[in-house]
Amino acid sequence: MSEAHSHRRQALRDRLRAQELDAILVTDLLNIRYLTGFTGSNAALVVHAADEPGAESRTVFCTDGRYLTQAQEQVPDLERVIDRASDLTLADRIGSAAAEHRRVGFESQHVTVDRRDVLAEAAGKAELVRAPGHVEHLRLVKDETEIEALRMACAAADRALADLIEHGGLRAGRTELEVARELDSRMLDHGAAGPSFDTIIAFGANSAVPHHRPTDAVLATGDFVKMDFGALVDGYHSDMTRTVVLGKPADWQREIYELVRTSQAAGRAAVQDGADVREVDTAARKVIEDAGYGEQFLHGLGHGVGLEIHEAPTLSQRGDGRISAGMAVTVEPGVYLAGRGGVRIEDTLVVRPSTPELLTLTTKELVAV
Amino acid sequence: MSEAHSHRRQALRDRLRAQELDAILVTDLLNIRYLTGFTGSNAALVVHAADEPGAESRTVFCTDGRYLTQAQEQVPDLERVIDRASDLTLADRIGSAAAEHRRVGFESQHVTVDRRDVLAEAAGKAELVRAPGHVEHLRLVKDETEIEALRMACAAADRALADLIEHGGLRAGRTELEVARELDSRMLDHGAAGPSFDTIIAFGANSAVPHHRPTDAVLATGDFVKMDFGALVDGYHSDMTRTVVLGKPADWQREIYELVRTSQAAGRAAVQDGADVREVDTAARKVIEDAGYGEQFLHGLGHGVGLEIHEAPTLSQRGDGRISAGMAVTVEPGVYLAGRGGVRIEDTLVVRPSTPELLTLTTKELVAV
Repeated sequence: MSEAHSHRRQALRDRLRAQELDAILVTDLLNIRYLTGFTGSNAALVVHAADEPGAESRTVFCTDGRYLTQAQEQVPDLERVIDRASDLTLADRIGSAAAEHRRVGFESQHVTVDRRDVLAEAAGKAELVRAPGHVEHLRLVKDETEIEALRMACAAADRALADLIEHGGLRAGRTELEVARELDSRMLDHGAAGPSFDTIIAFGANSAVPHHRPTDAVLATGDFVKMDFGALVDGYHSDMTRTVVLGKPADWQREIYELVRTSQAAGRAAVQDGADVREVDTAARKVIEDAGYGEQFLHGLGHGVGLEIHEAPTLSQRGDGRISAGMAVTVEPGVYLAGRGGVRIEDTLVVRPSTPELLTLTTKELVAV
Repeated sequence: MSEAHSHRRQALRDRLRAQELDAILVTDLLNIRYLTGFTGSNAALVVHAADEPGAESRTVFCTDGRYLTQAQEQVPDLERVIDRASDLTLADRIGSAAAEHRRVGFESQHVTVDRRDVLAEAAGKAELVRAPGHVEHLRLVKDETEIEALRMACAAADRALADLIEHGGLRAGRTELEVARELDSRMLDHGAAGPSFDTIIAFGANSAVPHHRPTDAVLATGDFVKMDFGALVDGYHSDMTRTVVLGKPADWQREIYELVRTSQAAGRAAVQDGADVREVDTAARKVIEDAGYGEQFLHGLGHGVGLEIHEAPTLSQRGDGRISAGMAVTVEPGVYLAGRGGVRIEDTLVVRPSTPELLTLTTKELVAV
């Protein structure tokens, strides 16, 4: 892994030079994890811009004493400072060598108004300048190490759902909360550190609520069962929704299911290197609109996934920009009929130069359990 | 609950007037939960300072469309605005009525540097001024509604541990990860929404690592089993550590156990209305220092608990100020012998005018399982 992290820091240096920054103080923990592999709850990092031999040896990492051993194992390749106030300690170091730190970026999208002042004072004559989004920009396009983690996270979710159904987990009389708990437990069985977000299980009319939270509602024959869930593996999040029916599907259920399935396939087909995010949304939305259900598709088509469950890009009419190879996104259209039921079908996939790579492999045929 | 929330907003108004603020824009979700009861993931709130009849009717709450129904249920008593950019929407409203909003506080300890600018622009002629920590200050002293939630959270943890031991959950051959998972599951059985932080289970020499994360390490006869865990109920966190021995304790285990137990009792006895936080720490620390283990007590004595697992006050030599009736704190001394094993004993308790109220009721006798 150290090599992947080193490459990421190299890419960050390239961006810093383009912004005429001498260095950047990274304080967001996910960004630090991305750049170093460190998973603790307190850390800061300074990366210098200069692309000179030994540039890496100037990178400084700081965490507190609880993580002494962990930092040695996870960040063996960087200078490590141990101090409780990690961001302040590194700002202080920057200030002590202000001559070589004229302009130092800080993550103004993460640092609070009050904390900025404390850091700026510690940095003294070194000027702290806003430098938002540099690491997040790098995180947009996943490297193969990251895609492998996403693949494992998606596989854990696929296997958990298969186990749930195979062992009769979806049967009349069970509550949404019970099913959610079993699904979470089965993801742990398959190597997840935990669910990647609060699992959504919605029976019957509850499936018409896009982000329903599981309740004591009881599963009955004829109900839609909407399951939106994911696994967390190595810090990476999977995201999948499947909707099944307990017993024989009614005609109206078949109709909206097939509609959403066709829309989802159209959305996936539009996930092409270079596609505009609005066009991807439109490709799926048009199918639902043409069938007269446009008003019942209440949300955007999808979002990026990675170290966060929701990250850039946003595949919706509110988004902008284009997707490119290596981005990991969800495609999740839905149709929600208030008081009756709803269907959402969601995959996580990776944009590739040609066809996207599907990471969530559970069937999208209408399953009657 | 609405009455408790209304009282809290009243107390906030008193603080605002003392600061000569016309209103405050609250954007931290925990602070919003404290002031309104709303549990969703997107919200903002404006509370006005004026203590006039109908002052409550000017309080404005904003969330997005996903939470329309939930907001009606949880925040029935306030004006509700539905918009995706909740903080921006309310800043805009403030700007539209700038004449009555000359000085409006914002939570500068939570709002990022970049977001402040966006909000200030929306607020227009209304001046946004730093107003950090007002709601956190109110949250220091818990009301009875909060203490009841803490009591339930502590009870769920107590019962889970009793079940674990009663059902043979601590037996030779089990791994730390298995025990952690069973304990988490048993807390759910007793009404927890989840663990209140990542459960720490440490066997044998691992118990000497204060914040050990569970591994595949296998339990063996003679091992210390250190368990630091808590339950989350109604948004409130419990926190408890117990250390037991599998089989017959060795003399050195009895010795450090009794030392920590005596220290912990001294710490609890020092939890008195008006006590200095350093003196509470000293009361427990002195017992361990006098026995020659001062260097092996690697952390502070305790911390506040509530809507966050770690919140003010800090009971340590680094803290300052005094504790007072209604604060909920942990008392958790430990002695850690590297390579051999460690003991920590931790309770959650509420400061009362006389004796503190103990919320975690599991025995602190040395248990041999």
